[in-house]
Amino acid sequence: MKVIADIAIIPIGVGVSLSKYIAVCERVLIEAGLEPNLHANGTNVEGEWDVVFTALKGCHEILHEMGAPRVSTNMRIGTRIDRPQSMQDKIDSVKQKL
Amino acid sequence: MKVIADIAIIPIGVGVSLSKYIAVCERVLIEAGLEPNLHANGTNVEGEWDVVFTALKGCHEILHEMGAPRVSTNMRIGTRIDRPQSMQDKIDSVKQKL
Amino acid sequence: MKVIADIAIIPIGVGVSLSKYIAVCERVLIEAGLEPNLHANGTNVEGEWDVVFTALKGCHEILHEMGAPRVSTNMRIGTRIDRPQSMQDKIDSVKQKL
Amino acid sequence: MKVIADIAIIPIGVGVSLSKYIAVCERVLIEAGLEPNLHANGTNVEGEWDVVFTALKGCHEILHEMGAPRVSTNMRIGTRIDRPQSMQDKIDSVKQKL
Repeated sequence: MKVIADIAIIPIGVGVSLSKYIAVCERVLIEAGLEPNLHANGTNVEGEWDVVFTALKGCHEILHEMGAPRVSTNMRIGTRIDRPQSMQDKIDSVKQKL
Repeated sequence: MKVIADIAIIPIGVGVSLSKYIAVCERVLIEAGLEPNLHANGTNVEGEWDVVFTALKGCHEILHEMGAPRVSTNMRIGTRIDRPQSMQDKIDSVKQKL
Repeated sequence: MKVIADIAIIPIGVGVSLSKYIAVCERVLIEAGLEPNLHANGTNVEGEWDVVFTALKGCHEILHEMGAPRVSTNMRIGTRIDRPQSMQDKIDSVKQKL
Repeated sequence: MKVIADIAIIPIGVGVSLSKYIAVCERVLIEAGLEPNLHANGTNVEGEWDVVFTALKGCHEILHEMGAPRVSTNMRIGTRIDRPQSMQDKIDSVKQKL
């Protein structure tokens, strides 16, 4: 099952600057073979369900190893079975109607 | 790794009444050995990471089998390594300060 | 326009224990005339749109006044015009189908 | 108070194709003077708190007028008072560390 997801990860208890941690999670996603598309409030990924969620687990684990006592993620997860659809398809579909 | 999570699942393309689908997902969570705590905008679960996410995958799969062409989940995911904490601990901790 | 919402607020840069801040936000919601229903990963409220969002702004403002340099909220917001529905109705509707 | 937000809006009960509704909400945000940055799972905006939330209310209202009986939004909302920060600053800050 393919999934398109949006991951917003917040390490808690490591101060106010979080970008170092976000960057490490991006690298975890890339090493999982995903092509994360970073935006101002999260990062988009698309891929097989198990690949995406194994990578997310890796993000939580590595942020804890870096010293974050708590890690909080907000995630949007979309699956569809009626037809194939990429992240770019979703964007294009809206932009054509603007 | 233990996780406390909040799952809000929306089947898309099945009309306006979603409770039948939410109920089926609750049952998937229960059959996974979790004790979901349903609230007005989602359901809380706590357990081992892999148990929670395997159950979530089961929710998406069964909603597709029930005829939902698209399924969208919003999920809050929390892990912590500084100390054990249950869902009830989290609630109690706030209520003591009210 | 009535809204049913779920608010999960995270002050960033104030250490690992957040319950003091969550409790203050609960009080802001109560003082706005709302009856927040706290759960393990957020709090549910129902009311007029402007009341809910004015209260949420008050939460961000008071957490900043308490010293949080950053405040991050994840919110689920639901409106419907086909029929009146309370938070309890939503829960009952699912539970009847379990 | 400035806010950086990420809005993911789902009209419920209007079938499986949602892009027409998303496009209308983008236009509401643009007409509010915001510069929404659409991505595969939502749209990012930055601006004054009241401008952003008045526009979001407009999105819910117009989607109901278009026939959606229910509208569900998931929103990430960030405020900070320690220093000014734009959406592009947030992205650049992570990318510099990749």
